[in-house]
Amino acid sequence: MPATAHAYSGSPLLVTFVAGVSGEWSVDRISPVVGESLAPAASIAVREGRGDSTPAGSVWSLRGVTSNARYTTRAESDALTARQAGLHRPSATRAALIPIRKSPAWWALAQDERRAIFEAESRHTTIGLEYLPAIARRLHHCRELHEPFDFLTWFEYAPEHEDQFEELVRRLRATKEWEFVDREVDIRLSRVEPAKGSSL
Amino acid sequence: MPATAHAYSGSPLLVTFVAGVSGEWSVDRISPVVGESLAPAASIAVREGRGDSTPAGSVWSLRGVTSNARYTTRAESDALTARQAGLHRPSATRAALIPIRKSPAWWALAQDERRAIFEAESRHTTIGLEYLPAIARRLHHCRELHEPFDFLTWFEYAPEHEDQFEELVRRLRATKEWEFVDREVDIRLSRVEPAKGSSL
Repeated sequence: MPATAHAYSGSPLLVTFVAGVSGEWSVDRISPVVGESLAPAASIAVREGRGDSTPAGSVWSLRGVTSNARYTTRAESDALTARQAGLHRPSATRAALIPIRKSPAWWALAQDERRAIFEAESRHTTIGLEYLPAIARRLHHCRELHEPFDFLTWFEYAPEHEDQFEELVRRLRATKEWEFVDREVDIRLSRVEPAKGSSL
Repeated sequence: MPATAHAYSGSPLLVTFVAGVSGEWSVDRISPVVGESLAPAASIAVREGRGDSTPAGSVWSLRGVTSNARYTTRAESDALTARQAGLHRPSATRAALIPIRKSPAWWALAQDERRAIFEAESRHTTIGLEYLPAIARRLHHCRELHEPFDFLTWFEYAPEHEDQFEELVRRLRATKEWEFVDREVDIRLSRVEPAKGSSL
């Protein structure tokens, strides 16, 4: 069953992004946006569910859990559901993994204050909606997992939508919400093609 | 540094409640409220932070993480902060650990729908405020930790406030919000007195 993009349904799913020398996505580049970067790696493997510990040969791994949306209203959720595409589209051979951490000042805000910055001021959902269904997205929470980041967002898109994706991240990074981001790394990936002659 | 009750500040703190034969709290009773109960145990130890794995002799253990409030507005948060007491008051020799799980229907709701049930309909924060500072409280989140419950709430109070505590839980269980609770266990505890003659 392909995962849906924004939609969260059912139990939280643990997802581990393992950077190393093998994986279904090859790393095009790893760029620090704010704060410390992550170590270079050739590939990233996306592991869903609880499995073994970090595999041998991994350079780093990041874990996150899909969960219920924390700010989205019913109207926004319905609008997202109506337009979004799921992960794993054959045409979506490009991906981005963007780990971010928000500042203590963000986490000290009350729910109504965070919601006001997230949507009323920053239009986070409204901006994201403009890029559906071209850009598929899945958000993973990791603040409660004792991880170095608070969120891992995974995006998938076709090569012809790369410019749209650049515009999306540029617009989000210009928002009031992003003033609370104190670490961000931008990892771009291409899906590894099956080897020529392989019998799929 | 004593933990504050409602207030969340700083990084998430992992707390493990270990039921077994030793611990600073002795179990008075374990009562199922909705769904399956937990196995009987003589004592509960409260471990803060990341430590070793489950100690030998434990009957069960539950883990949760303190985190930012998900529904509380700034006005509500300020009202709570002004009135609440911290954990570990010498007079608070009674405690309750109440693990709850909410239904898939709850988690499928959007943020505005959950907030409306939590406060506009159920007055969760408003009711809780009435029992401050007598009843100290700390909420632990565990939905993202692959635990059997979604929340572990820990309460501390003096013996003379036991009736107030009974009233608090009775009122909360009668709310609309509690219609979404599909598992709840109520564990009551008394602080273990230092042994006579011990040199504290």
